Amino acid sequence: MEHFERDLAAFKRKLLLMAGHAENSVARAVQALVERNSQRAAQVEEEDAVLDRLEIEIDEMGIQLLAKAPLASNLRLITAGMKISHDLERIGDEATTIARRVLDLNQNLPASSFHEIPQIAEIAIGMLRESLDAFVNRNSSKARQIIPRDKQVDALNKQVQRELAQSIAENPESLTRSLNLMTISKALERVADHATNIAEDVVYLDEALDIRHSGKLAG
Amino acid sequence: MEHFERDLAAFKRKLLLMAGHAENSVARAVQALVERNSQRAAQVEEEDAVLDRLEIEIDEMGIQLLAKAPLASNLRLITAGMKISHDLERIGDEATTIARRVLDLNQNLPASSFHEIPQIAEIAIGMLRESLDAFVNRNSSKARQIIPRDKQVDALNKQVQRELAQSIAENPESLTRSLNLMTISKALERVADHATNIAEDVVYLDEALDIRHSGKLAG
Repeated sequence: MEHFERDLAAFKRKLLLMAGHAENSVARAVQALVERNSQRAAQVEEEDAVLDRLEIEIDEMGIQLLAKAPLASNLRLITAGMKISHDLERIGDEATTIARRVLDLNQNLPASSFHEIPQIAEIAIGMLRESLDAFVNRNSSKARQIIPRDKQVDALNKQVQRELAQSIAENPESLTRSLNLMTISKALERVADHATNIAEDVVYLDEALDIRHSGKLAG
Repeated sequence: MEHFERDLAAFKRKLLLMAGHAENSVARAVQALVERNSQRAAQVEEEDAVLDRLEIEIDEMGIQLLAKAPLASNLRLITAGMKISHDLERIGDEATTIARRVLDLNQNLPASSFHEIPQIAEIAIGMLRESLDAFVNRNSSKARQIIPRDKQVDALNKQVQRELAQSIAENPESLTRSLNLMTISKALERVADHATNIAEDVVYLDEALDIRHSGKLAG
């Protein structure tokens, strides 16, 4: 039993390590965009392999833990952890998408302003950080507060898509640049989707336990 | 034990039901595009809720099964099933994206040809169907054959993106139409990504079992 608790703590630690990497990747990709820093963008691409490896390791630990889990609540926690790790891996993929577009953008002259993109990034990264906090602290009311922000990100992304389409229409030379920025904005919108998935997992985890505790799920 | 086997069989059946829905959604969304059938596109959007519900049900069944799983190989199978159901749910989201773009496209005059998109759809849907077959039949060599096709889809999608960007540059009036087709092509490329995830899960499932059987994973 003590052995199990220790392994479960190690599982959570590894998940947090992965979460830190995922968050850094997104933050770095956006930094690379804002600062036109191609080296930083290349770094994001390289680090994606770390997230891929961590996902496999977390899956392995999860399977080992499941074989020894004594309580239904632990089963739920472990499978939620495995799902979250999958979302974090996908966030890494989105960061890589952003980084590649930044590398392409940086081959040209300084781009005009696109202040909504850092704004979307800030909300998306905040949602990611808080959803992980909510998971760690098993705080479903905090997780619930994160979910509606996804709509805000969707709206901002739509606005960016519209503005960039407008800019292509008015200035066809901006085509490649605008398409790259569209992809970056969309990738950030997907980061927010994944953060929402994580927040929903936390709510579900908590509610299912509540229901189970209240005996409604008996049988 | 017999009870467990029966429940495991029901879990697999539900997963196959979900897989059928996901495959139909993508096929219908593409059909709606090719036939300019808005009613069909609207149907895809409505049916997405079915996939969302099935994912939750499969998760629930998975958790219940995990609590009773007697063998490590079963734990692996169940967690792989839960991961696959997550990928299927995302495929439904991509189908919905396609359907929404089709609805937008259909508000305008007939579009010119874009024969690569049905071609991408055919490969992606084939990958999805075969990866599920490989899962059901536990056929990892078949699953392995699916994975390289993802590169083919990536290349076709890149070609479509390039051609459509070209068409915007040459004919700015095609902007909205081209952006919609770009999104559709990208969504199909993501369907192929999810099918690849499923194929990789099948390979992993099989290999981990092989390793375990050969005693390398002892300890």
